[in-house]
Amino acid sequence: MKISIAQLNYLIGDFTKNTGLITDAIDKAKKEGADLVLFSELSVCGCPPFDLLKRDYFIQKCENAVDAIAKKCDGITAVIGAPTRNNTSGKKPFNSALAVSDDKIVFSTSKSAINPLGSHNEQKYFESNNHLVLFEFKGKRIAITINEDLLQDKSSTNSFNKLLIKKIIKLNPDLIVNIAAIPFSHTEIESRTQLFCDVAKKCGVPVIMVNQTGANTDLIYEGGSMIINKDGRVVKRLPFFEEAIFTFDLEKCLKETKTVEPQYNHIALMHDAIVLGIRDYFKKTGLKSAVLGLSGGIDSAIVLCLAVEAIGNKNVRAVLMPSRYSSDHSIKDSVDLANNLNIQYDIVSIEKPFSAFEDILAPLFTGREEDVTEENIQARSRAVILMAISNKFGNMLLNTSNKSEAAVGYGTLYGDMAGGLSVIGDVYKTDVYRLSRYVNREKEIIPENILTKKPSAELHPDQFDSDSLPDYAILDSILFQYLEQEKSADQITGENIDKATVDRVIKMVNRNEHKRHQFAPILRVSSKPFGKDRLLPLVGRL
Amino acid sequence: MKISIAQLNYLIGDFTKNTGLITDAIDKAKKEGADLVLFSELSVCGCPPFDLLKRDYFIQKCENAVDAIAKKCDGITAVIGAPTRNNTSGKKPFNSALAVSDDKIVFSTSKSAINPLGSHNEQKYFESNNHLVLFEFKGKRIAITINEDLLQDKSSTNSFNKLLIKKIIKLNPDLIVNIAAIPFSHTEIESRTQLFCDVAKKCGVPVIMVNQTGANTDLIYEGGSMIINKDGRVVKRLPFFEEAIFTFDLEKCLKETKTVEPQYNHIALMHDAIVLGIRDYFKKTGLKSAVLGLSGGIDSAIVLCLAVEAIGNKNVRAVLMPSRYSSDHSIKDSVDLANNLNIQYDIVSIEKPFSAFEDILAPLFTGREEDVTEENIQARSRAVILMAISNKFGNMLLNTSNKSEAAVGYGTLYGDMAGGLSVIGDVYKTDVYRLSRYVNREKEIIPENILTKKPSAELHPDQFDSDSLPDYAILDSILFQYLEQEKSADQITGENIDKATVDRVIKMVNRNEHKRHQFAPILRVSSKPFGKDRLLPLVGRL
Repeated sequence: MKISIAQLNYLIGDFTKNTGLITDAIDKAKKEGADLVLFSELSVCGCPPFDLLKRDYFIQKCENAVDAIAKKCDGITAVIGAPTRNNTSGKKPFNSALAVSDDKIVFSTSKSAINPLGSHNEQKYFESNNHLVLFEFKGKRIAITINEDLLQDKSSTNSFNKLLIKKIIKLNPDLIVNIAAIPFSHTEIESRTQLFCDVAKKCGVPVIMVNQTGANTDLIYEGGSMIINKDGRVVKRLPFFEEAIFTFDLEKCLKETKTVEPQYNHIALMHDAIVLGIRDYFKKTGLKSAVLGLSGGIDSAIVLCLAVEAIGNKNVRAVLMPSRYSSDHSIKDSVDLANNLNIQYDIVSIEKPFSAFEDILAPLFTGREEDVTEENIQARSRAVILMAISNKFGNMLLNTSNKSEAAVGYGTLYGDMAGGLSVIGDVYKTDVYRLSRYVNREKEIIPENILTKKPSAELHPDQFDSDSLPDYAILDSILFQYLEQEKSADQITGENIDKATVDRVIKMVNRNEHKRHQFAPILRVSSKPFGKDRLLPLVGRL
Repeated sequence: MKISIAQLNYLIGDFTKNTGLITDAIDKAKKEGADLVLFSELSVCGCPPFDLLKRDYFIQKCENAVDAIAKKCDGITAVIGAPTRNNTSGKKPFNSALAVSDDKIVFSTSKSAINPLGSHNEQKYFESNNHLVLFEFKGKRIAITINEDLLQDKSSTNSFNKLLIKKIIKLNPDLIVNIAAIPFSHTEIESRTQLFCDVAKKCGVPVIMVNQTGANTDLIYEGGSMIINKDGRVVKRLPFFEEAIFTFDLEKCLKETKTVEPQYNHIALMHDAIVLGIRDYFKKTGLKSAVLGLSGGIDSAIVLCLAVEAIGNKNVRAVLMPSRYSSDHSIKDSVDLANNLNIQYDIVSIEKPFSAFEDILAPLFTGREEDVTEENIQARSRAVILMAISNKFGNMLLNTSNKSEAAVGYGTLYGDMAGGLSVIGDVYKTDVYRLSRYVNREKEIIPENILTKKPSAELHPDQFDSDSLPDYAILDSILFQYLEQEKSADQITGENIDKATVDRVIKMVNRNEHKRHQFAPILRVSSKPFGKDRLLPLVGRL
């Protein structure tokens, strides 16, 4: 039997586009002699549709698209992902896989393991299915599953998938197909692959996992669809972060016994994910160009490099906005970087508006010392300038805050926290350095001085990040354990990290929830990004 | 039997405070001769705890608090609300009601009807219970239920409550107790009461519903606990939006047959809810004072009045920030209002920073027409001034955007959309007028000219809201039908509203999701507020 895997980049709610992508892939698969072509989870409507699933017209459009796709399947069968109505009155729809052929739906099944926690917020929108019937196709008995159905996590709070895997073993199919929509997380890339391999091994059945690619706002679908043999070895992997259609002879392919799974370079993957995240945000919203502030520091430097790679040097402009506290190297380093990337840049001093604000506020501030207020006025004056350029020319402002800063609230609301998209808000400062070294892997794009200078916000004379924050290696270690691993203060405290520092950092994280509430969407590269997934009371004792 | 209802104001995660509140109420109930004292849902930890429920130490603290409360119950039994561990490994906890007495938990049950949609995001955190056992207490057989367990909505996607009510009828208890945490929504006040009354009538059993009061960030718990007789009539209602402990003789109370339920004034309730919302945000975060910009328009006027009522005239300061486009009456009306309320105000012209920005941006903007850019610079200059005062003096900036503006994106990000708390972001413009008339019900606080002038942002000469928006009566009608009633464009189009206007408004709503993503938490007074409950893709075709 010949099968095609179609790993495509969908746009939520754009049925014309998605149907076109799917039918083009069906044509291609047919030309390549495929009997069966597999698409990913919710491919018909794009993922995640969130509240759109509550609108009847949206489900109707999905049904129409399924019909249109079924019409195109003459002499070939396609498995597509779509929400389907629940016949029990008042119940939520199902997250379904539909096999369509010759203008008919020939088989349908739905996801059992509705994820109560994930970024798709599924439990709000889908009812769980809990039975399994095999799809009999050309003499093969195929178990069609959807994403989490096979992800039998030890800590899983959902028991459906455990039952489901038992059922698969009992039914003993010839093949397991999994249609998925898996967003990238650099900490889960190996462990999630392992979960799929475990299922194949446990069931003694090969698994074909079909993922999608492309970014929808903060979620960057990683691609990397794979074929796993019955011994649990990955024998074929499709590329990460790009569209691909791969047609293969099932029997021949499963004779492979050597795994193709390499050691992954997490920083390289993170880089590719972010570039796709930026590119798709612009492409899918119809925005053409970006603007950002270049401070001379490493955060804005890496964001500029990633943006240029994503949308091209002609579409990114930078603004250097020195103040009375800026050091000479800030301008020089920024100019060097802008020239290395061959982008348009302007130098606009903030001295005039900064003085004007000081001036008009002086009568109100009589007798008060300078403090963080004056620092914030500078950061906010820069945001006014950047947003003015954004408004005048239609460039979207890219935010340059990193995850370490966002975590501890080391940033100014409506100042350097402004922007329509946070590019590195899920990247710790220590990883920002790694990403920058990766960008410089072949030649020096980011000037070495930016990589080696002591981090500073330059908002008052001789200010350094280390005045108010622990060393970034320590800070990031605490943050990773607290946020990613959900450890308590006591569990984090250890040989190299004292209790007082841990407590101080945790307090900063908890105290700054309100700032993150007003933050831009963050391109997600970890399993614990800030954003809608994280839900903590702004008022309360954390 | 004597029962006390304790309707209290809890703080999420503050176990010392909550335990103190509960044990004080137990003492009071005991003094009043009560056999049983009832507290509301999740009273031990405060509501909603969200992700805190995923932390083991948090559940541990809840358990410790339950033990401490049980110790205080000598000669009295208390029903309290708390999360409890699930003994099935990996499963989420339960949302439980515990009867404690003489240092022991004497009865426990948990919520069956876990709400898949509500503002508490319960399905993410709690497993559903699905059995019901009566609590036998002093010869009475009591069905203890939790909030949604009794709310058998026709459109409900959760079938547990239907089954549960059937079970209640079968078990035929003497009394139904419902411990709840119901946030205010002015559109649901009557219908929700009716749902409780329907249950009493259907089961032929009296219902005691115990709600909590107090605001936690955006959610304002409405209080209004009630006793409903077996005919489905409300025979006692506790006050809205304040703490109360009410002790009564059950038999005597249920002999009442006349309902005490009045016609509610929705605007008065909305007013009281918002005042409590502001007050608690300040009290519970430890903030003392507020600042806001007074434009001379009705939105900032009503926010000022509500803030003064909530935290006192000494704790609110206003800033008048005229520009070259401000009309004379803007200043005069604002000064009159500030004087009426006896609050501190300052007049700070934005001319200097506005000119400074124009000046430094002139080289970049050569050959370009003035447009929305210059309007936004003015709005953002005002935000810089307000935030500077906030930073220097520790006042929190109150946001003054209304729901109509937030819906259609009629506001400047990092400008007039700035602020730590949105006071009227869930109040349509037409209701802003009603609220203002209500504030003026006894004497003119808001100058009549503010109430009657034509709405204008005054960001360029002779600008009026009506230049870019439909009349507010039309706009609000479209928005209410689209947002609150989830009608489609075709359903909204009618005699007084043409299709083109409906389409334009819906397009504005959908196009501005990204602005609301970065908006402050909004005090919630409707069933469809903007905020975390509303989840739509920022990138996609809506």
